[in-house]
Parts: sequence; C-alpha cells; structure tokens
Amino acid sequence: MSDRPPAVTREPRLDPAPPRGMRDVLPDEVEIRDRAITTILDVYRRHGFQRIETPAVENIKLLTRGEGGENEKLIFKILKRGEKLTAVQSADDLADLGLRFDLTVPLARYYANNHARLPQPLKAIQIGPVWRAERPQHGRFRQFTQCDIDILGVSSEIAEIELILATAEALLALGLADLTVRINDRRILAAIARHCGFAETRFDSVFIALDKLDKVDKAGVTRDLETEGHSPKAIGELMRLLDDAGAIPVFLAGGAEPMAWQALQRIIATVTAASGGRFRIAFDPTLVRGMSYYTGPIFEIRYADSASSIAGGGRYDRMIGRLLGRDVPATGFSIGFERVIGILTERPAAISESTDRLVIVFAEDTPYLAAILERAREFRAQGLSVLLELRKKNLGRQLQDLETRGFTRIGLVGDDGMWQWRGPKA
Amino acid sequence: MSDRPPAVTREPRLDPAPPRGMRDVLPDEVEIRDRAITTILDVYRRHGFQRIETPAVENIKLLTRGEGGENEKLIFKILKRGEKLTAVQSADDLADLGLRFDLTVPLARYYANNHARLPQPLKAIQIGPVWRAERPQHGRFRQFTQCDIDILGVSSEIAEIELILATAEALLALGLADLTVRINDRRILAAIARHCGFAETRFDSVFIALDKLDKVDKAGVTRDLETEGHSPKAIGELMRLLDDAGAIPVFLAGGAEPMAWQALQRIIATVTAASGGRFRIAFDPTLVRGMSYYTGPIFEIRYADSASSIAGGGRYDRMIGRLLGRDVPATGFSIGFERVIGILTERPAAISESTDRLVIVFAEDTPYLAAILERAREFRAQGLSVLLELRKKNLGRQLQDLETRGFTRIGLVGDDGMWQWRGPKA
Repeated sequence: MSDRPPAVTREPRLDPAPPRGMRDVLPDEVEIRDRAITTILDVYRRHGFQRIETPAVENIKLLTRGEGGENEKLIFKILKRGEKLTAVQSADDLADLGLRFDLTVPLARYYANNHARLPQPLKAIQIGPVWRAERPQHGRFRQFTQCDIDILGVSSEIAEIELILATAEALLALGLADLTVRINDRRILAAIARHCGFAETRFDSVFIALDKLDKVDKAGVTRDLETEGHSPKAIGELMRLLDDAGAIPVFLAGGAEPMAWQALQRIIATVTAASGGRFRIAFDPTLVRGMSYYTGPIFEIRYADSASSIAGGGRYDRMIGRLLGRDVPATGFSIGFERVIGILTERPAAISESTDRLVIVFAEDTPYLAAILERAREFRAQGLSVLLELRKKNLGRQLQDLETRGFTRIGLVGDDGMWQWRGPKA
Repeated sequence: MSDRPPAVTREPRLDPAPPRGMRDVLPDEVEIRDRAITTILDVYRRHGFQRIETPAVENIKLLTRGEGGENEKLIFKILKRGEKLTAVQSADDLADLGLRFDLTVPLARYYANNHARLPQPLKAIQIGPVWRAERPQHGRFRQFTQCDIDILGVSSEIAEIELILATAEALLALGLADLTVRINDRRILAAIARHCGFAETRFDSVFIALDKLDKVDKAGVTRDLETEGHSPKAIGELMRLLDDAGAIPVFLAGGAEPMAWQALQRIIATVTAASGGRFRIAFDPTLVRGMSYYTGPIFEIRYADSASSIAGGGRYDRMIGRLLGRDVPATGFSIGFERVIGILTERPAAISESTDRLVIVFAEDTPYLAAILERAREFRAQGLSVLLELRKKNLGRQLQDLETRGFTRIGLVGDDGMWQWRGPKA
C-alpha cells in the first residue's frame, strides 16, 4: 500500500480535429454543395434518370477483384466483429468489409442483385461519398463525393449520346460555360497500337504512356515508351500519326475499326447538332482514361483552359457479366464533383445576400413570445427563412455580425412588444 | 511434373447481395426518401437552421468515451493501414478509426473544432447515414439515416421551443398529422426519485426501469425495481405518484425543481399556443429517453396510436465541454427517419402517376435522332422529365411496361419521322 493520495482522475482532452485526411464542411460550403447537387439531380431527372442507393460498405471480396486498379490499394478495411474476429488465422483475414472506393463497382453488384426488379434499361443516378486512404494532399480528401450517371442494358451509342448531353447540360446549369467534350474509343486506341506494330499483349503499357501526353509532351511519351522497351519502329509510327492531325481519321476511315469509328462519328455529329453551340465535342485519339475495364467509347469534359477534366466516363460492357453470369452492356459518366465545387467556390458571390431570409431579435424573457412565433410562422408560410435570435448584451455587435452573415432584414422586438425593422420591412 | 492438363482458371462467381444487414434501395423508394428529405430540409431551413457535414469516419478514441452507451459496442472499426498496422501490438490496437454510430458525438467534435468560424449560436441540421453492427432483424438495418437538428449555445428553453416547433412542422409537412409531443426533464426525474427516497447514486437504474413502463406496465416496473434491490418504501411512493395523475405536478409546483418546472411550463404553454391545435404537447413524468448524456428537458413525438416515438431528443449541456474545455449549452431533436419512411411507404399512392414526365420511343437507327433530341430538350426546358427509349421488338409489351411504371404520356416516333401520342399530347 502506498501513502500517496490516489491520482485525481482527469480526462485527457481529445484533439477535436477530424481524422487525418478527412474534413468538416462549414455551413456556407454545405449550402454551395447542396445547391449544386439539387441542380445536377434536377437536370438528370429531367433526362429520365432515377437515383439509386447502395450501402457505403461492401464485402471486401467484391472490392478486391482488380476492377478498381490502383484504388484497391487504398481501401479502408473494416475489422471483423465478434466470433468472426476470434477465428482469424492471418493478418489478411482480419477484414470482411470495406468502404467503397467508387460507385461503379457497387453499381455492377446492385444491378446483378436487383435486375429483375429494375427498369430495363436502367438509367441510374448515384451521388454519394467514396473513401480512399490516399496520402493527404492539398485539396484532396480521403472522403469525397462522386456523382455518376450510368445506362445499363443499352449497347447502342444512343446511350453515350444521352450521357454526354445530360452531363454537359448539368454542368451548364451550374454556370460552367466553355466546355469541351473529348471522345475516343478503346477499340480505336487498340487499332492504332496494332497499326503501329506494338505487341498486342502490351497495349496497356502503350496506353498508360500515351495518357501522359498532356503532362509530359511527345518527347516524354517517347522516352516512357522506350523505357518500357517498346519497338522503336512502333514508337516512330505512333509519333508520326500524332504529328499529322489528319492521319488518324484517314487511317480509321480506311476501315481499321469500322463499327467503333462509325459509332464515334454518329456520337460527335448528333451531340454537335444537339449542343446548339453551347459546348464543343471533338475526337481525341490520345484520350485514354485510366480504368482498365473500359471496352468502347471513352469521354471526358474539360472546363475553359484547364488541362484536367471535370467529368469522365466510358463504356464497360464486361463488368456486370462477372457478377451476373451474362454480359450486360453498360456505359457511365461521372462528374468530378469536388473539382466542380472548387471552381464554384472560387467564384465571387458564390453565396449572395438573400432577401428571402430574415432575423427576429428579442429578449429571452419577452412576454410576447407567442406573438413572435405566430409572426415567424406567417413569414415561413410565405416561403421565407426566419431565424430567431435572443438579444445579446451588445446588440450593436450582434446586428453587425448578422449583417456580415448576409442578413439584410432584421426585425427587432422591443420590451414593449413594438417591432422595429432594419432593411426592407417584412 | 504431372501429366494432367492445367486447371482452367475459372473465376468463382460472387454472391451479389449487399453485406449482411445492409441493403440496396430501389429507385421508387429512393424517390420517396429524397422527397421526404427535401421536405424536411425545407422546413428546417425556413426555421433558420443550416446543414453541416462531418465525415462518416471518426477517430476510434472519440467514439469510445462512453457517450454512445450500448451503441459503442456496435461500432464498425476500421483497420489501421500500412506501417501503423505493422506496428500493432495487440488485438485492441488493430483499429484507429470507426464508422459513426450517431450524429451527436460527431457534432460535439465539429463544434469544438470549428466554433470560431461558426455562427453563435449554431443552429445545425445534420442528415446522413450512421452504422451499427446490430444483429440484423426485420426492418432494421446496419446502415440507416438519421436526421437531427441541434441548437448549440442557447441555455434558454427558447431553444427547446424552436426544436419542437420545427420538428413538428417537418412531420406535419410530410403528411403525418395526429402527433403528440411528450416532454419531461432529467432534473424533474431526479427530483421525483429523490422525493421517493431512492439512493442518489442509483437513479440511473430507477430511470431504466421506469423507461419500460409502456411495455411492461406498473407491475413490471415494480418487479424490475425490486430485482434491482431498491427500497420497497421508495418503490411504493413512486407507484403512488404514478397512480395519481395530479400528484406529480402538485409536488413539483411545491418547489422541488423550480427552474426546471418553470421552464417546462413555459415550453408547454408556448408550444401549445404556437401549435394552433395541429398537434398536442403534454408533460409525461415517465418519459426517460435512453442516453445518459441528457441534462435537462427531454422530449419525443408519437404518431397516431403508435407506442413508439418517431422523433426524440433532449438537452445535453455537458458533452461539448469534454472536448472544448468549457461547457456549451446544447439541445437537439432527431427524427427517426427510417421509421417515418416506413410509415410513408405503407400509405397508398406514395408514388403516384405523374403527368410531368413522358417517354419518347424510337428506333435505334432512326434518321430523325437530332430532331427527337431537340424536341426532348424543349420538353425539359418546360420542366418535364423526358425518358428516351429505344423501340424494342415487342412494342406492345414495352408500352405496357412503361404504363406499369407510371408513364401515361408516350410519344412514338415512326420510321417516317411522324409522332404518335398515347396519353395527353405534349
């Protein structure tokens, strides 16, 4: 037994920051995000799409079948629970679930699980968070929102036309003019690689190098291809094609991939006509898009002179077959929601003063509370937002704070029950 | 070396069901859920509340400090990653993060982390999924949506009045008439227990027994209290109070908890006046509410003759202090979103035929695609939802399916480019 008095139990204070790489969203930014989501959903619904929902959590087996590429290394894995955890044999066996890293793999599972109860074809909207344990860096977070539309069950390029029009309309509705759609086809990329004489088994390596053209220029791509050990003759032929803007269409018109080329021509012509000049669409034979599951047309949208895309997608006709046992044609387009919000937030007056909200300020012990609440109810019935605020000791400062927050209409209820209005009277 | 040919590598097909206890939401139900959320958010925003967002994932230390009660046993824990996992010493040390089990604990952290950049007081809306690894049972899922409003920084009962009015208005706006608010106060519960002569250190056990009054009646509560070893005299006095409807108010009016009783009287009187008879509010001295963090008024809302509540909440003035180092008064009200959706879904015509959406059916190879898209664009500009459908081989069946899905306006584009309308012409 010690003589020392028992230690005072003091709770150590926790750091209130969110987990590393995650973030809290303040009310003003939530408002911008919510308004953007409302706008996008409205456009998509008017295009006949319907929102669906899958759980945030999926079986780890589904998430680690190779379709996620590099993203599979970034899965947040969920520890087994109870008896299951006690029976664990090895470290690999600790997790049975994981947080989804995208919305496409869960969509394929959803379709395989529910296809008998879903409209055929399915035109699905998905909007929700995904998680990736990436090294935190400026402006990128480990939880972020994705916003996808997909058409499942249509092999015709009509599906691509609908996706491109709906997505461009959504971005236009957000106020993002000056949009360029770039489009290519995985079969055309393969035909080009074949034509140049690259080894058929190593096309993926060619595409990965080509994908960097924007960032490292042609000399850089050449170096990458050389380092990868590709034939100098094939590399030379690819560079010759890229140098001559007209060479690739001529080569394709020659009949290398007639179906793919014809579909691409129809997409470009139809979208151009339907765009009414409000955005552009152009064939880009260097467009690759990262994911290996694409099988046909691939596309992305760039905003103004930005070198990176704000939306991307493509056709993936083989993915659902792996779960359903029969292939279902599928194509999707994903808005880079966080990038779009970044653009919207940088604009002046993303949040503007609003006359459709007002404040009523009154003393805590006012005898006129019932009358104040009744008045507030009337304003709300007119569609106004009414904030009730208890009068603070420093009323001048309080009114200033409210004006800083954008409230221009303030009703002050005096101790005698009389109202005084600042700003337009309600 | 074996003579047998190598086994054909065949991918085992995965079960496409979602993880145990989780679920996929079909488009029609998503529509009901989205409409309910829009309605609730609209009411809350008109009451001056602003939506905030926290990550789905929190540090495990925050989630396991006792505030979650039994829910802390149900946390989905996230495995450490990379080097952190390699350095693990014991099984308890495997997880550093967890999925949130409610929205209140994250709100307290959010406020402690961001208070300097938040409006004072903060009127926060939170709506989003939470996760609990409960044993799956009918109608309860391991991921479900919570929908909370909280007022942080107001000690006056004005905050409770605002929460109750806003929540009741939201439920009324969803079409849920016949609402009863029940209200009590933790300090009053303590005063009753003290008055009856229960041991001060064992009030929690008394409250837990009392909480079951709805399910097990007075005899059951008496048995529970006896089993727990409480004084027969105290139990007898409690039962006497419960038998005599007027006894508790008389006892309270006598001055046992004057502040709490006076605040409760003001809440009830003010809410009654403001309700305009559209819902009821009543003092219920047997109301306990589960969570141990409540410090003042507690309340819930019942719908029609249901014995369970569809919304619940209360004041928790001590929680934020544990993170911030100084107490901040706080009170919140949470709608049981899944229960509400359950009620809405059971109603006939939750999804009704809608004339503001139409379908255009045409052949895949139509030469009139540009004109069809232009027409669709015009309809959409009028606010209509337009679904494009490729004509299937069995057109009769296709039209029937569309009508089953609620489409009453169908435009058929013939091979000659002529339009034929079924239902009201657009």
